[in-house]
Amino acid sequence: MSRIFNFNAGPATLPTAVMNEAAAGFADYNGLGYGILEASHRSPEFQEVIDTAEQNIRTILSVPDDYAVLFLQGGASMQFAMIPMNFLPAAGAADFVDTGVWSKKAIKEAKLFGAVSIAASSGESNYDRIPAVSEWTRNDDAAYLHITSNNTIYGTQFQHTPDVAGGVPLMADMSSDIMSRAIDVSTYGLIYAGAQKNLGPSGVTLVIIRKDLAERSPESVPSMLKYATHISSNSLFNTPPTFAIYMLMLTSRWVLNEGGLPAIEARNRKKARRLYDIIDADDYYSGHASPGSRSIMNVCFRLPTPELEQSFITTANARGMIGLKGHRSIGGCRASIYNAMPEAGVECLADFMVDFRRKNG
Amino acid sequence: MSRIFNFNAGPATLPTAVMNEAAAGFADYNGLGYGILEASHRSPEFQEVIDTAEQNIRTILSVPDDYAVLFLQGGASMQFAMIPMNFLPAAGAADFVDTGVWSKKAIKEAKLFGAVSIAASSGESNYDRIPAVSEWTRNDDAAYLHITSNNTIYGTQFQHTPDVAGGVPLMADMSSDIMSRAIDVSTYGLIYAGAQKNLGPSGVTLVIIRKDLAERSPESVPSMLKYATHISSNSLFNTPPTFAIYMLMLTSRWVLNEGGLPAIEARNRKKARRLYDIIDADDYYSGHASPGSRSIMNVCFRLPTPELEQSFITTANARGMIGLKGHRSIGGCRASIYNAMPEAGVECLADFMVDFRRKNG
Repeated sequence: MSRIFNFNAGPATLPTAVMNEAAAGFADYNGLGYGILEASHRSPEFQEVIDTAEQNIRTILSVPDDYAVLFLQGGASMQFAMIPMNFLPAAGAADFVDTGVWSKKAIKEAKLFGAVSIAASSGESNYDRIPAVSEWTRNDDAAYLHITSNNTIYGTQFQHTPDVAGGVPLMADMSSDIMSRAIDVSTYGLIYAGAQKNLGPSGVTLVIIRKDLAERSPESVPSMLKYATHISSNSLFNTPPTFAIYMLMLTSRWVLNEGGLPAIEARNRKKARRLYDIIDADDYYSGHASPGSRSIMNVCFRLPTPELEQSFITTANARGMIGLKGHRSIGGCRASIYNAMPEAGVECLADFMVDFRRKNG
Repeated sequence: MSRIFNFNAGPATLPTAVMNEAAAGFADYNGLGYGILEASHRSPEFQEVIDTAEQNIRTILSVPDDYAVLFLQGGASMQFAMIPMNFLPAAGAADFVDTGVWSKKAIKEAKLFGAVSIAASSGESNYDRIPAVSEWTRNDDAAYLHITSNNTIYGTQFQHTPDVAGGVPLMADMSSDIMSRAIDVSTYGLIYAGAQKNLGPSGVTLVIIRKDLAERSPESVPSMLKYATHISSNSLFNTPPTFAIYMLMLTSRWVLNEGGLPAIEARNRKKARRLYDIIDADDYYSGHASPGSRSIMNVCFRLPTPELEQSFITTANARGMIGLKGHRSIGGCRASIYNAMPEAGVECLADFMVDFRRKNG
């Protein structure tokens, strides 16, 4: 079997070792005579899977004990609604840092529940940067402050957790950079991430929430949309997406086996630097993100003309590199280089970029 | 590889042919060099998967053109909230037929949004039957009428679609009997089903909805919780649970290959009759459901003593039959014999039941 290099933004490539292990035991898990996706969610076999998944996340991200680790459904889009439903009173207001399409979607849903204030936005420069904290206009009595830590479309990323003094809970959409670098979970009120970039396949959403916050939800919130429901039932209030959680367990175990977050982060930074160095070498490639806001997960760049971009994508495809087309809102090319993209894949792309420039410069 | 017979109530056994096909292409789908769960949800490969899944469902259930077929997340439990959120005005009332634990959960969530009237309940006899339509007390101006078509815990099932005259939309939780027998979709306003019994693995929820109903949702409903959102985007508003939808596509294709619903239904009725005949043969086994309300999906029965029940379950387990323990709310034994349980599995169980009675009678 020949595996290609898949640079899609998500659902994205998973570690080959994980894919092979899941394939081998797919219809006969641990010799039990059935697949893990056929196991009852109340079985000891699945309980071990979900417990291990939670423990792996706790270990990798050093999650403090007063935070719950939840496996939910609906992706970031459902969190866009659940967070204000639980934490934004009708008479309250929430602060949002607007760093692109996904921030705006979160803002749109929050407005259904209460007032929204835009603390900062880089919309005027087509979201090429993360606004500096010094430029933000924040409300000290905001119900919460919401950020999108990595912006897949624009290739921008918060370089540090913003310092939010004053007790306003910080809510972060980390869908596209969770588990890619060290974070201090204790500085956040709630972290959420669709799994389909760094955690596993689509269909499961990781939520890390400070437990005391969950007690603030109004009584009117339906059971499935209330964080407290899932905390008290350890993500087993109803039938969870068992196979997606199994894949997340395997993927997080792989991260641990690779050396945990320090090793993964170092490799991610090396991979990103390899591509940005080529972009910075001359004017042939131009990065979308301003250098101080660059993402180590999504490298967005343009070539001199749309025709060359199309040729670049098509030629790369023929060489076993797929998913390099940029998002329609900024065009150009995008290389998504999540945890599971091997260095060999980035080397292959880097060599191709140099070669393409030489031949088409 | 030796596959055991898995009688779990859900997540449940899937067809061995489906499991083998998914395993074979798991890490290299159609020779593309990556797995389908690594494919972008915007790729032609996944679009073909979801289109085929929808078409299979339309063909198998003869879904009329004015109904949408949606693939959502959150299971029946999320539908318990979404239906009233979209269709129960604060000043309105909905009718519910209470046939057990799952009906009650649906009722509990609906009460957060409006008034609920219990049209009928079999709670007094521990949900051993489906109340006859002639006993129901319905409101002609109800926002909708809600039923649970099959009750996994008690082994009861509506034998026919209730005749709901007067234009009140009929909403049905068919999680545990969808695609097991012929239904007339046009008599329903909305049908929903968690996939993990007859459709595939957990993590995807099938919704079949009359499209005009979706226009009634209030503006205040968040995008992800509004049916119209998913209708207009063909279930691709956000990243869907791609692998669960792929498995649903394979499972529905298997149903078509087996001869479609007529063949599946005939086999299901034959399988159920085989077990009920043994239960009815004498007083050793006693069925929970009254004969006129028996489910062809979940056969719930007791043995003369709890000790014999425990011995029955343990001995069956040792013979390669798992998942036969009944739900704690009624105790005893339960054989869930969904579409994917082969006749050989039911024969194996039937022979064992006769043998166990002979040895322990």
